[in-house]
Amino acid sequence: MQSLNTSPVTSGAAARITISVDAMGGDKGPAVVVAGLVDSIRQRPDLDILLHGDQALLQPLLEREPGLKGRVTLRHAPGVVTMEDKPAQVMRHGQDTSMWATIDSVRDGAAAAAVSCGNTGALMAVSMIRLRKLPGINRPAIACLWPSRNPGEFNVMLDVGADVKADPSDLLQYAVMGSAYAANGLSIARPRVGLLNVGTEEHKGRAELKEANELLAREADRGGFQHMGFVEGSDIPGASVDVIVTDGFTGNVALKTGEGTARLVAERLKESFTSGLLAKIGALLALPALKRFQKRIDPRRANGGVFLGLRGTVVKSHGGSDATGIAAAIGLAYQLALSGLTEGIAARLASIAAAGQDAPLMAPGDSAGAGIKGGSTE
Amino acid sequence: MQSLNTSPVTSGAAARITISVDAMGGDKGPAVVVAGLVDSIRQRPDLDILLHGDQALLQPLLEREPGLKGRVTLRHAPGVVTMEDKPAQVMRHGQDTSMWATIDSVRDGAAAAAVSCGNTGALMAVSMIRLRKLPGINRPAIACLWPSRNPGEFNVMLDVGADVKADPSDLLQYAVMGSAYAANGLSIARPRVGLLNVGTEEHKGRAELKEANELLAREADRGGFQHMGFVEGSDIPGASVDVIVTDGFTGNVALKTGEGTARLVAERLKESFTSGLLAKIGALLALPALKRFQKRIDPRRANGGVFLGLRGTVVKSHGGSDATGIAAAIGLAYQLALSGLTEGIAARLASIAAAGQDAPLMAPGDSAGAGIKGGSTE
Repeated sequence: MQSLNTSPVTSGAAARITISVDAMGGDKGPAVVVAGLVDSIRQRPDLDILLHGDQALLQPLLEREPGLKGRVTLRHAPGVVTMEDKPAQVMRHGQDTSMWATIDSVRDGAAAAAVSCGNTGALMAVSMIRLRKLPGINRPAIACLWPSRNPGEFNVMLDVGADVKADPSDLLQYAVMGSAYAANGLSIARPRVGLLNVGTEEHKGRAELKEANELLAREADRGGFQHMGFVEGSDIPGASVDVIVTDGFTGNVALKTGEGTARLVAERLKESFTSGLLAKIGALLALPALKRFQKRIDPRRANGGVFLGLRGTVVKSHGGSDATGIAAAIGLAYQLALSGLTEGIAARLASIAAAGQDAPLMAPGDSAGAGIKGGSTE
Repeated sequence: MQSLNTSPVTSGAAARITISVDAMGGDKGPAVVVAGLVDSIRQRPDLDILLHGDQALLQPLLEREPGLKGRVTLRHAPGVVTMEDKPAQVMRHGQDTSMWATIDSVRDGAAAAAVSCGNTGALMAVSMIRLRKLPGINRPAIACLWPSRNPGEFNVMLDVGADVKADPSDLLQYAVMGSAYAANGLSIARPRVGLLNVGTEEHKGRAELKEANELLAREADRGGFQHMGFVEGSDIPGASVDVIVTDGFTGNVALKTGEGTARLVAERLKESFTSGLLAKIGALLALPALKRFQKRIDPRRANGGVFLGLRGTVVKSHGGSDATGIAAAIGLAYQLALSGLTEGIAARLASIAAAGQDAPLMAPGDSAGAGIKGGSTE
């Protein structure tokens, strides 16, 4: 495990955390990324930034912000990955892009984690080939934080879009990785994990989900989580579990459905409050309460899909992120690097793999199973 | 097609619509169902009800409501299907239940459509064996109305839970059935149909979805809908399509995720408005606006999953429905019966099947394709 170059990068007597940030590729341009840097650096005195992108564009933006002096190192990268670029193209010809350089800083050990608001497919492809998968991982996953009724106000859900398929052994790996994320990101020592299905009864749903449910029950102790069985869509924002596990197709649909529904409700509310004089006066009196409400349901607070299962932490910020969203994504990358997320995942996977060597849990020829066993010998 | 006993049941000179209602099996008991009858009958002078359930329980409830006199016929059924009963049990031993009798009234032609708030799986099983599938239908589906930004304020989504699987020919049938529902339920002559996926680009998603997308493009004109290609979860409450087509696993997760998210947002809003004196005064001033808002996002307005693809219309009301929810479900059944939903679906399916005889669109041995061709000879 010592070979994983993912431990927080420290320099000098006081430990400092360096985060690698892609300045290009977001819908709102590099000025918004620089504004996000200002917010995140002000709050964290031990944070440094490696910023990748077009020097001619970025240098003047950085010089205008005195707070960034001595904290941001600019690395010129001439190429930009656009939202239209196909992942395969970027994998072959993307070496000169800011996205590639952002990931390579984590690979080289110059930074502890990476943040980009560029093209998700390309970012996952570049992360896979440059960072590579953790020992034993079959499919990396993208995890998101979902506003919930739990004390920490968020649940972890994965996969929300790395891969449209997941077999039972992938779902077990998602449970393990999601638990490590909840442990490091939300400080829940032994998270409760639910498997997303169309009902909570054991006979419901697809056959592969029943198999996955049994596998999760068997491996929960070794994986460091509590097995809660099946959950439904209504449990994603609920308080009955901390981590929701599903395939990337279902997870992506659920995430976008939830976002779309919350947006519609907020629109309707705004329409109501501007529908007449009394309503407007009422809204004015309730303004501080409404602002608190807005802040609690603000999707930017939970900005940042985290790529799990790689040799390093990558946070994908929303393509349309503003400065607040980018600062939240950098804050998340900082917290996950500081708490050693990658090491936490590797340790949990190793625990399952060690048990797998005594009594094989995976079917022979199962690539995930073979990978897990191979991983423990590294 | 004359053999379909699904046309509105008429009696006397003025056409009257009879709806068959299951008084038992809801979480809140038969008193709530009777209260729902009162609301729905008051609004519709041409509506009659056939009510099925325990006579000793129901007779006194009906006698207390003078508005129901001469409009409700009580049919005694001693048995009740509970939420815990397995569909297979009910299919074998459920002949004496109110649910069975409710469906049989549609089968016999005594009622034009059925409403029940009982166990969904059992209701679908009883509907399948008693009403049988429409000619050519492989998998019946459950469709719901989803609050949206479209002028009619609702979109149609299916399947939301009849079957966890759907192959491309099933998805085409869902598109056809969903279009008939939007035409009859929302008065949209040629509805725009979108296929739910993880992105709108043609290369994204699962292989079977690409195949389904091509099939929908080819059959759109004959099926009476506009093919809009792929949509994402965020489009479900949007204005870009009228009908969203997906498999019952994904649809069920999306539906429950949307409901759960809306509920969380409403809770947070309520907390904000009770958080201080100014906020409370503000809420009081804005009360009429807040009530309009609450009404617009009230899930009871859209209560009623409709079973599509059977020889008769069945509306599944939410298990926890109150009187308002039950009245909405009865109103929906009434409207769909009046507008001839079953005939509309059959006509659209026949149009596709007729074309299929000239140039087979389905793979040989595909049961759905074979069914469609067989159906057109009836």
